[in-house]
Amino acid sequence: MSDALVIFTPSGKRGRFALGTPVLTAARQLGVDLDSVCGGRGICSKCQITPGYGDFSKHGVSVAPDALSEWNAVEQRYKDKRGLIDGRRLGCQAQIMGDVVIDVPAESQLHKQVVRKDASTRPMVMDPATRLFFVEVAEPDMHEPSGDLQRLATALRAQWDVPEISMGLDVLRKLQPTLRAGGWQVTVALFSDHSGGAAQVLDIWPGLYEGTLYGLAIDLGSTTIAAHLCDLRDGQVVASSGIMNPQIRFGEDLMSRVSYAMMNPGGDVEMTRAVREALDTLIGALASDAGCNARQIMETVIVCNPVMHHLLLGVDPVELGQAPFALATSGALSLKASELDLTALNPAARAYLLPCIAGHVGADAAAVALSEAPERSDDLVLIVDVGTNAEILLGDKRRVLACSSPTGPAFEGAQISSGQRAAPGAIERIEIDPATKEPRFRVIGCDLWSDDPDFAATVTGICGSGIIEAVAEMRMAGLVDPSGLIGSAEQTGTWRCQPEGRTHAYVIHDATATGGPRITVTQGDIRAIQLAKSALYAGARLLMDEIGTDTVDRIVLAGAFGAHISPKHAMVLGMIPDAPLDRVSSAGNAAGTGARMALCSKSARAGIERTVTRIHKVETAIEPRFQEHFVAANALPHATAPFPELSRVVTLPQVSFNTGGSEGRRRRRG
Amino acid sequence: MSDALVIFTPSGKRGRFALGTPVLTAARQLGVDLDSVCGGRGICSKCQITPGYGDFSKHGVSVAPDALSEWNAVEQRYKDKRGLIDGRRLGCQAQIMGDVVIDVPAESQLHKQVVRKDASTRPMVMDPATRLFFVEVAEPDMHEPSGDLQRLATALRAQWDVPEISMGLDVLRKLQPTLRAGGWQVTVALFSDHSGGAAQVLDIWPGLYEGTLYGLAIDLGSTTIAAHLCDLRDGQVVASSGIMNPQIRFGEDLMSRVSYAMMNPGGDVEMTRAVREALDTLIGALASDAGCNARQIMETVIVCNPVMHHLLLGVDPVELGQAPFALATSGALSLKASELDLTALNPAARAYLLPCIAGHVGADAAAVALSEAPERSDDLVLIVDVGTNAEILLGDKRRVLACSSPTGPAFEGAQISSGQRAAPGAIERIEIDPATKEPRFRVIGCDLWSDDPDFAATVTGICGSGIIEAVAEMRMAGLVDPSGLIGSAEQTGTWRCQPEGRTHAYVIHDATATGGPRITVTQGDIRAIQLAKSALYAGARLLMDEIGTDTVDRIVLAGAFGAHISPKHAMVLGMIPDAPLDRVSSAGNAAGTGARMALCSKSARAGIERTVTRIHKVETAIEPRFQEHFVAANALPHATAPFPELSRVVTLPQVSFNTGGSEGRRRRRG
Repeated sequence: MSDALVIFTPSGKRGRFALGTPVLTAARQLGVDLDSVCGGRGICSKCQITPGYGDFSKHGVSVAPDALSEWNAVEQRYKDKRGLIDGRRLGCQAQIMGDVVIDVPAESQLHKQVVRKDASTRPMVMDPATRLFFVEVAEPDMHEPSGDLQRLATALRAQWDVPEISMGLDVLRKLQPTLRAGGWQVTVALFSDHSGGAAQVLDIWPGLYEGTLYGLAIDLGSTTIAAHLCDLRDGQVVASSGIMNPQIRFGEDLMSRVSYAMMNPGGDVEMTRAVREALDTLIGALASDAGCNARQIMETVIVCNPVMHHLLLGVDPVELGQAPFALATSGALSLKASELDLTALNPAARAYLLPCIAGHVGADAAAVALSEAPERSDDLVLIVDVGTNAEILLGDKRRVLACSSPTGPAFEGAQISSGQRAAPGAIERIEIDPATKEPRFRVIGCDLWSDDPDFAATVTGICGSGIIEAVAEMRMAGLVDPSGLIGSAEQTGTWRCQPEGRTHAYVIHDATATGGPRITVTQGDIRAIQLAKSALYAGARLLMDEIGTDTVDRIVLAGAFGAHISPKHAMVLGMIPDAPLDRVSSAGNAAGTGARMALCSKSARAGIERTVTRIHKVETAIEPRFQEHFVAANALPHATAPFPELSRVVTLPQVSFNTGGSEGRRRRRG
Repeated sequence: MSDALVIFTPSGKRGRFALGTPVLTAARQLGVDLDSVCGGRGICSKCQITPGYGDFSKHGVSVAPDALSEWNAVEQRYKDKRGLIDGRRLGCQAQIMGDVVIDVPAESQLHKQVVRKDASTRPMVMDPATRLFFVEVAEPDMHEPSGDLQRLATALRAQWDVPEISMGLDVLRKLQPTLRAGGWQVTVALFSDHSGGAAQVLDIWPGLYEGTLYGLAIDLGSTTIAAHLCDLRDGQVVASSGIMNPQIRFGEDLMSRVSYAMMNPGGDVEMTRAVREALDTLIGALASDAGCNARQIMETVIVCNPVMHHLLLGVDPVELGQAPFALATSGALSLKASELDLTALNPAARAYLLPCIAGHVGADAAAVALSEAPERSDDLVLIVDVGTNAEILLGDKRRVLACSSPTGPAFEGAQISSGQRAAPGAIERIEIDPATKEPRFRVIGCDLWSDDPDFAATVTGICGSGIIEAVAEMRMAGLVDPSGLIGSAEQTGTWRCQPEGRTHAYVIHDATATGGPRITVTQGDIRAIQLAKSALYAGARLLMDEIGTDTVDRIVLAGAFGAHISPKHAMVLGMIPDAPLDRVSSAGNAAGTGARMALCSKSARAGIERTVTRIHKVETAIEPRFQEHFVAANALPHATAPFPELSRVVTLPQVSFNTGGSEGRRRRRG
């Protein structure tokens, strides 16, 4: 027998190979995904495999104990020095000597499939743009003179099939000493993205570099900036951190920042500097928390709305403040991170910005589309990314529409009397007993409900998801009527509805006796929530009109706090259209997930760039029906839409607190 | 007759076109080189042509007075507003209405052929990487949202066949206001080099930009830096300037600078900063002299030797100081000028560095090869670029060899007792009467010879070409023997040979009586020249050995002062091998010319990159025969080589001044 059958698991790929063929060679020839950084020199250990012995009736093969070659000196030295898990071999050293079944463990797969923690429409495949390559470079020969860079390029071409490389001056400066320190063996970090072109040498280390390369997925929101430091080999998030967007001091919402730029010469430059400094500080702190060297951070992917996008790039966002809302650039951007004044990562690190969909629908919406993949959905899915500005996607395999809607910051707890951001002490869940009208609640940082005898948490305010539940619960308990009016103590039968000026407020928690806060939902809070939810609903409804449907098959709530919104409460409020409650799911921070996917996969980048060109954009700001939909959506849940699915699970009391008094008149004038 | 014959001159291209076809359209269809920046809108006037009327028997055509259409409103408005030379028409407006002969004047040709002032093997063709394009961009449409950049790209594709563009953040920042200021008409400066890839928008102006784009050709020498500001449309040098290389304070020659970097940590960084600052200052001063806005300077091409190349790039040159003389990078480099800290030009300006040939044969030698094109020569040509380090090329159509030789600074007047750089007051020409042994000379800044009764110039020293002539004349007049020894007054019969220590010096000029200098050629000067010329000859001879020849067909003297060297004197000294004197020519500053050619033509860049890979490099430093050749070349002109061509025109006196005295012994010990 001069050759042997080799079967790889889990892929199932199989083939016959000459005896003596290294397992790594067989894997490469079959296209089995087996990693290697050192190119088969037995030093990186990335190609570890587990041979199976005995009978494999499923594969119709029996594996003899000597199916792989004996341990050679290289493999033995590796094991003695670094250790190997029992049963593991180095794929580049172990040779095929008989029929064998070879398992490639997940950590030896180059394109590992990463299971996302959150409910997900598709797994993430590791296909990072930046990878390490160990390479042996020819020494210089004065009779055939060539640059060290040119010999490195030749080596990468011969040993790794890298057709062409480029190198910035900072790395070039290190090239000669590093090659000599490594004895003409070096590891390079090569960036090669989906756009083709020369692979860029981002960094170089002598010998085999055994450190980890990291990337940063950044969700740059109007209010908060969240960053996730990810291992570029397996996509794991090793550290996360968030800070407030310092641009808040120039304006709470996007349009007020655009106004700031219009009214103050140089205002855009100030805001650009503020956000870049904040990002850089955040990155530095995150790297320090994770104990990783800034030099190991090779890439960042940033998703954000168009105004933040322009301010980050240093482009005055003034055109985004007025029709026709022209973006300076809508395409994806691949930059040097240093062009954005980001210094707390590798000096040659790259930055990738997802494409924008339209002047009001940004790279963050593109990231949501990347994460949720509506263009691959069989059923009609509505994806709502709730934030200061809501991005809304509606579609299926046939077509995908997008719009944005200016919900304002109410859903994030801003402009709410007892509102606060989601932090320990904030009420995040609330239930109101329909009979007694008594509330019970849970606060962030404490697992007990407030009616538990052991509940002892300090209560400081209500966060976004808390206010949504509070208003919905008030509506379900008959404390608020369909028009959004809070009833008086007499009308509702509970002391908790207390007068506040000419209107009423519902007291959730009163710790004033002990010097603590008094937490209420005021009439103003309800009005703020009504404005926000009407905008959200009207945007979704506009897309449904465009597609010619009154119903959607399923709804995905996304956004940093989308995960925390109770679908039932959202539907009672009429934030989202009527749908079967079990078809409403949460995608968590889908924009952040999309950023992470783009960070870990260049094919994800190529994919979303293609997808975005096919998304049809609907501009809410100039659409007359948006205003109609907005007005009709003011009622809780809605003035005219029937909400039959909601009725199956919730019966809303038919109360009315409008006594023709001042609040009612004020509303009509509004 | 529904079509007409059109003949373009000077190209001679001809074709038949439907009546009413604009001349520009006909030119484009025939591939006639007719410029246009505005794309045929009648506003840039670059497409001016001169129609010929009457009989053209040579072309067999008779042109009627109405062969072109009447002046239309656009053309008339242009003429009224801006003026047009009599007889000229705008090619984009004038339509063909009958058989016609159309002359395209040189200034309307896009790829003008520029006649080089210096003797030249090939003309320079304008094919600059950076050009202006006027373009009309679609206005944004909120129903089909796209970025302004994307619409600019679409317009450039449609109107100019530019397949793809990219834009840095600085220009992106200007894009929106410029498009709006220009009413959606803008002019962009596009950089698109020979490497392919997206064209880069380097700058943008509202409407039709009528300014000139400039480029800088920089010859960065060890001792001096020369820069030429060139019009990128016609290649004209509009201003030139030079300064001393400030790195001189770290070491006069290259190896002492390499030593400085080795001995002083951070020394390379100091030298990098010094040369970059000097370049930036020089550029700023040059732009200011020429009255051009820094923003109009879009490109620079820099040629230099490998040590300067590395120091400019910020790479420690230590490896160039020792075998195997490894370059960090040998390839051509296309950079942003800002990467070299050059700020006195457009912020997006590009910098191109020609490839290096070897560790001792740099981009300056490549520039000489570009200018002199030995690879196209039918006969065997030796090209010698004389400087502190001499670059030597030898070859013809079949093969080209290159080496460098460390001549030292003697040829530049350094290390010479009365030496000075070429500046007013320096002796640059000298003749010694063989009978009387009396000298006469000319100094820079004065056209009269010193024996002219009206000669009244102040004499300050001898420059490089002067010392070469002085030593050669002394040899021809029998004042110096073949071994290089200066005879005494008794031996030579002239009081001008005066004792100086144990040797003699020849007095050229003595103004000590009036407080002026005493200018002599000392024995030490002769020795310095002998060392330098031996190195030069030995390098050339090594290449001749390699090619297997004892003679060359012709010799080109290049280098900043190569133009000033008298071929006869150079050959008497034995600086260059024997050759017919009328086949020895001067190419002037060939490296600078090569830089200018690369600046004006991307095909020149592509060409020299190809050529350099085919040049065979010979490393003098490790070649044992170099030392032999060097020793044999010490004599004037040579100890063994016969120099038959020189004998035809000059008979050298057979003198010998070696009396077995101290100088003779010292030499043998040396």
